Amino acid sequence: MSILVVGSVAYDTVETPSGRAERVLGGSASFFAVAASYFAPVNLVGVVGDDFGEQQLAAFRGRPIDLAGLERAAGKTFHWQGRYSQDLNSRDTIRTDLNVFEFFQPKIPAAYRRSELVFLGNIDPVLQREVLAQVEKPRVVACDTMNYWIKGKPEELRETLAKVDVLLINDQEARELSGEWNLVKAARAIRRMGPQTLVVKKGEHGVLLFGHESCFAAPALPLETVIDPTGAGDTFAGGFIGYLASVRETSDATLRQAVVMGSTLASFCVEAFSLDRLLTLTRMQVGERYAVFQALTRFESV
Amino acid sequence: MSILVVGSVAYDTVETPSGRAERVLGGSASFFAVAASYFAPVNLVGVVGDDFGEQQLAAFRGRPIDLAGLERAAGKTFHWQGRYSQDLNSRDTIRTDLNVFEFFQPKIPAAYRRSELVFLGNIDPVLQREVLAQVEKPRVVACDTMNYWIKGKPEELRETLAKVDVLLINDQEARELSGEWNLVKAARAIRRMGPQTLVVKKGEHGVLLFGHESCFAAPALPLETVIDPTGAGDTFAGGFIGYLASVRETSDATLRQAVVMGSTLASFCVEAFSLDRLLTLTRMQVGERYAVFQALTRFESV
Repeated sequence: MSILVVGSVAYDTVETPSGRAERVLGGSASFFAVAASYFAPVNLVGVVGDDFGEQQLAAFRGRPIDLAGLERAAGKTFHWQGRYSQDLNSRDTIRTDLNVFEFFQPKIPAAYRRSELVFLGNIDPVLQREVLAQVEKPRVVACDTMNYWIKGKPEELRETLAKVDVLLINDQEARELSGEWNLVKAARAIRRMGPQTLVVKKGEHGVLLFGHESCFAAPALPLETVIDPTGAGDTFAGGFIGYLASVRETSDATLRQAVVMGSTLASFCVEAFSLDRLLTLTRMQVGERYAVFQALTRFESV
Repeated sequence: MSILVVGSVAYDTVETPSGRAERVLGGSASFFAVAASYFAPVNLVGVVGDDFGEQQLAAFRGRPIDLAGLERAAGKTFHWQGRYSQDLNSRDTIRTDLNVFEFFQPKIPAAYRRSELVFLGNIDPVLQREVLAQVEKPRVVACDTMNYWIKGKPEELRETLAKVDVLLINDQEARELSGEWNLVKAARAIRRMGPQTLVVKKGEHGVLLFGHESCFAAPALPLETVIDPTGAGDTFAGGFIGYLASVRETSDATLRQAVVMGSTLASFCVEAFSLDRLLTLTRMQVGERYAVFQALTRFESV
């Protein structure tokens, strides 16, 4: 099953306690696409400026990532600059230059319209809906969003959510979207808005999955060294959706495996700046780390 | 195997968004003892004032909790008053009247000296060591502590930790004790201080167990209604140590089961004020909820 992703492709300048990375490849669609490409073909929709060169595109080459939907516009590529706190638990945005991303109007190539899984990255909910309108009967529509849209375009976001099967957001966003602090209550409220599956990302505290049948809790891998958390959430989404695409169904058991696969990919992402670790990953390493999650969580009956 | 617990027995006055409980039974040793008594006999060491009546003692009666070590001193019982935030994630202490607890000198009855598991509740590390000195060759020594002692008596605490097998503390305390923000690094540093098993309690985010062989992550149960979080950590410790006492060994697999059993008991504790829910608990309910934790965390290989 093929995946369509729409989101940002960007330059990031990132400072963490481990160092600084200057104008490296970033953006939600970049992390998502590379992670998902371990499992299924990805059709990427985004926009870059005329300063985005072959070196950056190289990250996507040699993988099943179709770039026909990556528009090149006159101007500069979206650039985000941020600095993480010493404990990596918070970050300040130093600079956001939207550049060509400010006027992004996603155009879906004809060949992408039959994509069976769609991931609507964190963009204006109106654009998310426009993307959906250009896709024929996807089997699964997944979506990310953020506080900016929850506060700024609540009605537009509600209209989008009504068309979404799986929503992936962090715990704070789930609380703001639902108006409920308690995550069980928040999940019930959000599932009434449309998405029948809710994935709540809690960073170092792992993930909660709320579905039809049950609730599932997965930890994050306790890592001794985290170099750069940027892109971990999008990488999680890529592993999650990629796995769903590879097994072609969405039972409760499969959704749980997908959560662990997403967590597996995310645990690699943070081991280096940008997509550096994701780009050197092998399928064997992915399988081995999935097994580490099994060892981390296993316990016996009493 | 019998358990010796030393800690506070107190009156609590608690306000949460669900209501207010006035001068109800509290204290670390109370929660611990009742939770542990589901699994093994408990020898309780603590002090109460002459205002502590038969009604309060009734909570311990009819259970395998020996009260020969519960000293009754002239004066008033320790009283703590606190108020939780709307989201239950923080609390303010309104009042702490140590009363008879201020001059507590734990005296271990002769019949307690052969207790095989010892739980040193959160008291002055000097007193914790004095308790240990009165016990003959316990198989497992477990210990709790808090920021107050980590900051106030760091050297005395280090001396106690050198004699401890299992340390149970929360994530913030682990960071302060070790000087490491990263919990994997913190765990390594703390294990070098003595305790070969470290249990890091993360509240609603669950528990991390660092042992000889491996790391284990258990979630907390996502609960829709939390009435009062007071005592959840001590109840966790009671379920954890109680389970170890009942199976008489401390393999990696057993420690994992004990973490889930502690989480199981703690999930009941928060469903009511004081020990109210713990006191009505049946073994069948405990077993059923342990199975809920299995359902919450289970996922298959890929």
